[in-house]
Amino acid sequence: MFETAELDRTLSKRDYEKQLPELRARLVQAQFALKQAKIPVIIVISGVDGAGKGDVVHRLNEWLDPRGVDIHAFWQETEEERERPFYWHFWQALPARGRIGLLFGSWYTEPVTRRVYGHIKDAELDTALQRIAWFEEMLAHDGALIIKLWFHLSKKSLHARLSKLEEKPETHWRVLPTDWVHHKLYDKFVRVSERALRGTNTAHAPWRLIESTDDRYRDLTAARLILEAIESRLGRATGTKVKTSRRPPTISVPAKSDRSVLDKVDLGSALTRDEYERKLDKYQARLNRLTWAAAELKLASVMVFEGWDAAGKGSCIRRVTAAIDPRLFRVIPIAAPTDEERAHHYLWRFWKHLPPDGRATLFDRSWYGRVLVERVESFARPEEWCRAYHEINDFEEQLAEHGIVISKFWIHISKDEQLRRFKEREVVPFKRHKITPEDWRNRQKWDAYSSAVHDMVTHTSTSFAPWTLVAGEDKKFARVQILKALCTRLEAAL
Amino acid sequence: MFETAELDRTLSKRDYEKQLPELRARLVQAQFALKQAKIPVIIVISGVDGAGKGDVVHRLNEWLDPRGVDIHAFWQETEEERERPFYWHFWQALPARGRIGLLFGSWYTEPVTRRVYGHIKDAELDTALQRIAWFEEMLAHDGALIIKLWFHLSKKSLHARLSKLEEKPETHWRVLPTDWVHHKLYDKFVRVSERALRGTNTAHAPWRLIESTDDRYRDLTAARLILEAIESRLGRATGTKVKTSRRPPTISVPAKSDRSVLDKVDLGSALTRDEYERKLDKYQARLNRLTWAAAELKLASVMVFEGWDAAGKGSCIRRVTAAIDPRLFRVIPIAAPTDEERAHHYLWRFWKHLPPDGRATLFDRSWYGRVLVERVESFARPEEWCRAYHEINDFEEQLAEHGIVISKFWIHISKDEQLRRFKEREVVPFKRHKITPEDWRNRQKWDAYSSAVHDMVTHTSTSFAPWTLVAGEDKKFARVQILKALCTRLEAAL
Repeated sequence: MFETAELDRTLSKRDYEKQLPELRARLVQAQFALKQAKIPVIIVISGVDGAGKGDVVHRLNEWLDPRGVDIHAFWQETEEERERPFYWHFWQALPARGRIGLLFGSWYTEPVTRRVYGHIKDAELDTALQRIAWFEEMLAHDGALIIKLWFHLSKKSLHARLSKLEEKPETHWRVLPTDWVHHKLYDKFVRVSERALRGTNTAHAPWRLIESTDDRYRDLTAARLILEAIESRLGRATGTKVKTSRRPPTISVPAKSDRSVLDKVDLGSALTRDEYERKLDKYQARLNRLTWAAAELKLASVMVFEGWDAAGKGSCIRRVTAAIDPRLFRVIPIAAPTDEERAHHYLWRFWKHLPPDGRATLFDRSWYGRVLVERVESFARPEEWCRAYHEINDFEEQLAEHGIVISKFWIHISKDEQLRRFKEREVVPFKRHKITPEDWRNRQKWDAYSSAVHDMVTHTSTSFAPWTLVAGEDKKFARVQILKALCTRLEAAL
Repeated sequence: MFETAELDRTLSKRDYEKQLPELRARLVQAQFALKQAKIPVIIVISGVDGAGKGDVVHRLNEWLDPRGVDIHAFWQETEEERERPFYWHFWQALPARGRIGLLFGSWYTEPVTRRVYGHIKDAELDTALQRIAWFEEMLAHDGALIIKLWFHLSKKSLHARLSKLEEKPETHWRVLPTDWVHHKLYDKFVRVSERALRGTNTAHAPWRLIESTDDRYRDLTAARLILEAIESRLGRATGTKVKTSRRPPTISVPAKSDRSVLDKVDLGSALTRDEYERKLDKYQARLNRLTWAAAELKLASVMVFEGWDAAGKGSCIRRVTAAIDPRLFRVIPIAAPTDEERAHHYLWRFWKHLPPDGRATLFDRSWYGRVLVERVESFARPEEWCRAYHEINDFEEQLAEHGIVISKFWIHISKDEQLRRFKEREVVPFKRHKITPEDWRNRQKWDAYSSAVHDMVTHTSTSFAPWTLVAGEDKKFARVQILKALCTRLEAAL
C-alpha cells in the first residue's frame, strides 16, 4: 500500500512560494464558508513518527484562521480521562458545527500502538477499527466532514531524517527516545498501519496518503488535500453536483502531475545469455524443490500474472510451470466470462479455481481485470471498481489466513518496447496470431492503464499479498526476477 | 432483543388455512418474476436449535417451485472443504441469478457455535461478523436479495418442545443429543446470537426475527416475510417507489395485527401500604450499601428513566436518590437541547454527563428520546432514528466495557390510568403545573408511542444494558420494582 508514497516526491522552493499565497487565501475563504454552512470539520493527523506531523499542525494553524480552529493533541491520559470510557475525551474534543478540529493523534493512536507493541492481537485491533468506522460514520451522518491524513516515510528516509536531526545540537532535542524505538518497530508498524487504513477507509471518511520526505511537498500537499475536501463538501452542501460524492473511497495519493509507481521500475535491468541460463537453471531447480516441500506441508500457492500486452506473460508462465511437477499445479487463463460465470458474482469463478492444500494455481490474468480493463473500458461503474479494491483485499486475506501463499506480478515494459514487439509480431508469421486490433486499441489507453496500475498497487499491495513489479524490457531478466521472487515467497512461508 | 419474540404468538388452524392458498400463489408468482428479473435470492435459515428450522425448510421447499430452489445444509466439513478457505463452500452454494438458495445453516453457524463453546473470544467473533457483513454487502451490491430469518424460542418453550418430542416414541428420534447440550448453553447462546444479530443487521441484509413456539405461526410468518422481501425488491427492480428501501435496517418482528411487548407487563401488580413500606425500607437500605460498595470498587452506574407522561418517573427517581449518598450521584433531567448541545451530535451531551468511576448518574429521560419522541414527532428522519438503535447500542456497550453498570426503566401505565392522573393533576392545585397541553397532545399518539417502545426494546435491550419494563399502575409497586432491579443489577456486577 505504501509503495506509492515512496516515490521521492519533492517541491522546489520556487513552486512552493508560487502556489502558497493562492492556497492560503482559498483556505481561509473555505473556512469562512464552513462557518456559514455550520459544517464541523475533523482533521485527523496521523502517520509515521518522525514524518513531521507536529510541523504540519503548526503550519496548518498558521495558514488557517486560528479563531476557528481547535487543536487537540492526545498525549498521556489524564486521571479524569482514565475514569471515563475510552472515547470520552474524543467526544470532548469534537468541534462544534462551523469549527475545525485539528486532531494530532486520535482514536487511531492507541489501537495501532498497542498492536505494534503486541499488547493486543489482530482480532482485537479489528474490533477497535470496527468501532472507529462506526464512530466516524456516525459523525459523518451528523454532518461532519472528516479529513484523515496519513504522513508516510520509508524506513530509509525515516532513518536519514532522525540521524540528520540528531547531528545538529540545535535540533538534537527534537528526536525523542521513542522515535528510535519506533524506528526499530518500523516494519511491524507499517503492517499494522496498513491493516488500520484498509479497515477504516470508508466512503464518508477516506484516507489520504502523503509522502513526507520533503517538508515543502508534505505541508503544501496536506493543505491542498484539506482544501479539496472542504471545497468538494461545500460544493455538495450548496447542491453543486460533485462527481466523487457517490463514489466509495479510494485511498488518494495526490496523483495530479505526479509520479506513477511504475516509474520506479528500472527498465534498464538485463541479463546476458550466460547469466540468464545459469540463473534460470538455479531458480527453476530451487522452485521445484520448494513446490515439493510445500506439497509435503500441504501449503498451497496462488500466482497471479498481469502486465502490458506483449510484456511476455506467457513466456514467463512457461518458465515457471517448467519448474513445477505437473501434478502440483494448474494454469487458469482468464478470458471473457462464460454464461455460467456471468450468472454469478465476478469473484465466483476465481473461488472455484482455488487450489487445494499443497497445490498451486497460476492465474494468467485474474480478478484484477476488475480494476484494470473493466475500469479503463468502463465495463464496471466507478463505484464498482472502487469497491473492488476492498473486495479483493478481503478475498486474498482469506486465502492467506488459510495458509495459501500469494504472489502477484505486474510485468512492466516501456511504451516503445511494446510498439517494437507489436511490429515484430506482425511480421513474424508464427507470432502474427498473437497481435489483434484490440492490442492496438489498448495501447491508445496507455496512460489510463498506468494510473489504474498505480491505484491497484496503492490499494492491493498488502503484507499478505504484495505486488512484485517486474522489469520486463529484457525478457530474460523478467523471467529470472519472477522465479526468484516465487522462491523467496515460498521460502519465507516454509 | 429477543423479548419481543417471546409473546406467545399463535395462529389458529382456521386462519392458517384461510391465509395459506393466497400466500402460496403469490410466492410462486414472485419466484417466477425473480427468474425474469435475474435476481439471485439467498435465504438464510438460522436460530435456536429445536425451533424447527428443518421443518421450515421442508415447508418452504413445498410452497416454492422446487425447480428454482437450491437447498444447502451446512453440516460436517468434507475433506474437499477443509482443504480450501472457510468461505469456499459458501461460494459454491451461492444461487445463480434468478434462482433461490435456501441455506440451512450458513456462515453464521460456525462463528456463533465456536463462541458459545468458548473456542474463540468476542474479538474474534467480531472479526468473523465483520467479514460476514462485508460478504453480504458484496453480494447485495452484485444484485442478490438476502433474506435472513432467525427462529427464536424462549428457554421455557425450548425445554417444553424437547420434552414433548422425547415423550412420544415416534418423535423421540428427532431430539438429537446436541439439542440438550445446546439447551444447557441456552443463555450463552442467546447472548452470542444477540451480538451476532446486532453486528450483521445491515441495510442490505436485515434480520427478521420469528417467534417459533407455534408451528403454524412460524411457518406462515417465514413465508410471509420472504414474500414481503421479494415483492418489495421486485417493486424496486421495476422502479416502483418502495418506502423502506432507503431506510437503514430495523430488525423486523412481524408487527401487523400483533402484540406489543408492553402487553406482557402485568398492570394488576400492586402492593399494600404495609408491604410497600417494608420493602421500600429494605431495598433502599440495600441500595445504599451497594452504592457505597460500588464506590469502593470504582464501579460507576448509569440509570435511565423513561415512561409515559404521568407514569411517575419523578417520584420513582426520588425514592432511588433518597437511598444514595448525595456525594455519589447526580440527576440529569433531559429537556430540549441548548444551543451548544444543538451544535454537536445528539449523543454529545450524554457523553458529557457520564459519571466518573464509582459514581452514579440518573438520567430523567435520555438518549432514547431519539427513538421515542423524535421518531413519533418526526423531529428525526426515519433513517436517523433507525440508525440510532445501533448508535445507542454501541454507546452503551462502550460504557459497559468500561465497567459502568447500566439500568434502563420504562414505566408503563394503562391509557385509562394516564387519563385519571391527568384529570387529577388538573384539579389538585399543587399538581396543576405538571400538566400541559403537550401532555394531551402526546396522549393522542399513544399507539405510535407504543410501537416505538416495542421497537426500542427489540433493538436496545441487550445483555449488557437490558430494559426493565415497570408495572406503573400502582406507584408503590413501581418504586419497589425499580429499587429491587437496581439492587439486582449492582449485586450481579459487584
